Amino acid sequence: MNELIIWTFDWVPQMPRGFVRDLRLRWACEEAGLPHTVRTVPFDGRETNHLAQQPFGQVPFLNDGALQIFESGAGLLHLARKAEKLMPRDPVGEAETLQWVVAALNSIEMVTVPWWFMKISGKEDSGLASWMGMRLQHLENVLREREWLAADRFTAADLLMADVLRVPDVRSFGSRPATEAFITRVTGRPAFKKAYADQMAHFAAADEKQV
Amino acid sequence: MNELIIWTFDWVPQMPRGFVRDLRLRWACEEAGLPHTVRTVPFDGRETNHLAQQPFGQVPFLNDGALQIFESGAGLLHLARKAEKLMPRDPVGEAETLQWVVAALNSIEMVTVPWWFMKISGKEDSGLASWMGMRLQHLENVLREREWLAADRFTAADLLMADVLRVPDVRSFGSRPATEAFITRVTGRPAFKKAYADQMAHFAAADEKQV
Repeated sequence: MNELIIWTFDWVPQMPRGFVRDLRLRWACEEAGLPHTVRTVPFDGRETNHLAQQPFGQVPFLNDGALQIFESGAGLLHLARKAEKLMPRDPVGEAETLQWVVAALNSIEMVTVPWWFMKISGKEDSGLASWMGMRLQHLENVLREREWLAADRFTAADLLMADVLRVPDVRSFGSRPATEAFITRVTGRPAFKKAYADQMAHFAAADEKQV
Repeated sequence: MNELIIWTFDWVPQMPRGFVRDLRLRWACEEAGLPHTVRTVPFDGRETNHLAQQPFGQVPFLNDGALQIFESGAGLLHLARKAEKLMPRDPVGEAETLQWVVAALNSIEMVTVPWWFMKISGKEDSGLASWMGMRLQHLENVLREREWLAADRFTAADLLMADVLRVPDVRSFGSRPATEAFITRVTGRPAFKKAYADQMAHFAAADEKQV
């Protein structure tokens, strides 16, 4: 098997720790038992210093042998294709997983991230709140009826949707008990806890180097 | 081959015509030569009347035999898996296509759609404009260096990115000549013109029924 390399920043400030999106790929690898190593690009100068690897200056990106892939959602789908644990092999289960992965990226995160971005910029009443409320309520209605989003079992779709929803400001937006139970259930998995602890330790070690 | 059915609304107001996202799936089918039929759900009551098919009340969704899939990005990737015209079969070409499809959904459209939504809501100075400017400039830098986003040839990634970028307000945001040339190149394809004309005719026919 090719060596998997997950690329992230060498250091980030306190706030995004535990939420940098390399976590999605670490978590997926832990779920699937895929050996991987983590390497870094500098946080300083990130807007320009690794554009050849990631044209928007973001992380993560992934190496799988000769193949390199950016966008955490794309990396996740790439890993899901390698591991049945993350995505069923049957066409219906695969389609369900794919549609919910894209829903997390393009129906939920497309609203929650801009809303959050404007909130931390001091524009809480941004006009996005009612849109977000509708989307999250639709999702709450789905999660009231089922434990997992796709294929009646844990998939990459649950991993990604829980990661999108666990952002503290999003999690505390309104009362959505089924969604809250979903986040708790999915982030209670040992693979999430391992990936989260590994990311926190990675950035804590970077602090020590800077002292 | 299974029958492909693309679901859209029975009618929409003038403004979104030519931009309803069933166009992405129509276009993909035209590029790939995949026979398909179009069916409709009512626009009236869309927030609740087809949640069993699309849990956010949106269109399109796609039937492929027994399989049903929502989210235009997921439907597009599903069709791309069926047709080499839309996505190369080699792992590197496939990964490049996938990453740029996700970039269109989660790095570009995640900014352009909320920005546009706030603009038409009368909040043009929403705080999202500088973020959008940065993302679009990064993309401009990429498109200065290449004709197609992935695999040195037309793929589903170009289809989706051009569809995201051709929104008039987005297209006229700043000066980005390589991006403009890309949009012109990709939407100049006969398959786009056919899909666009078909969508316009579909909604025009709905007007006549209402008279």
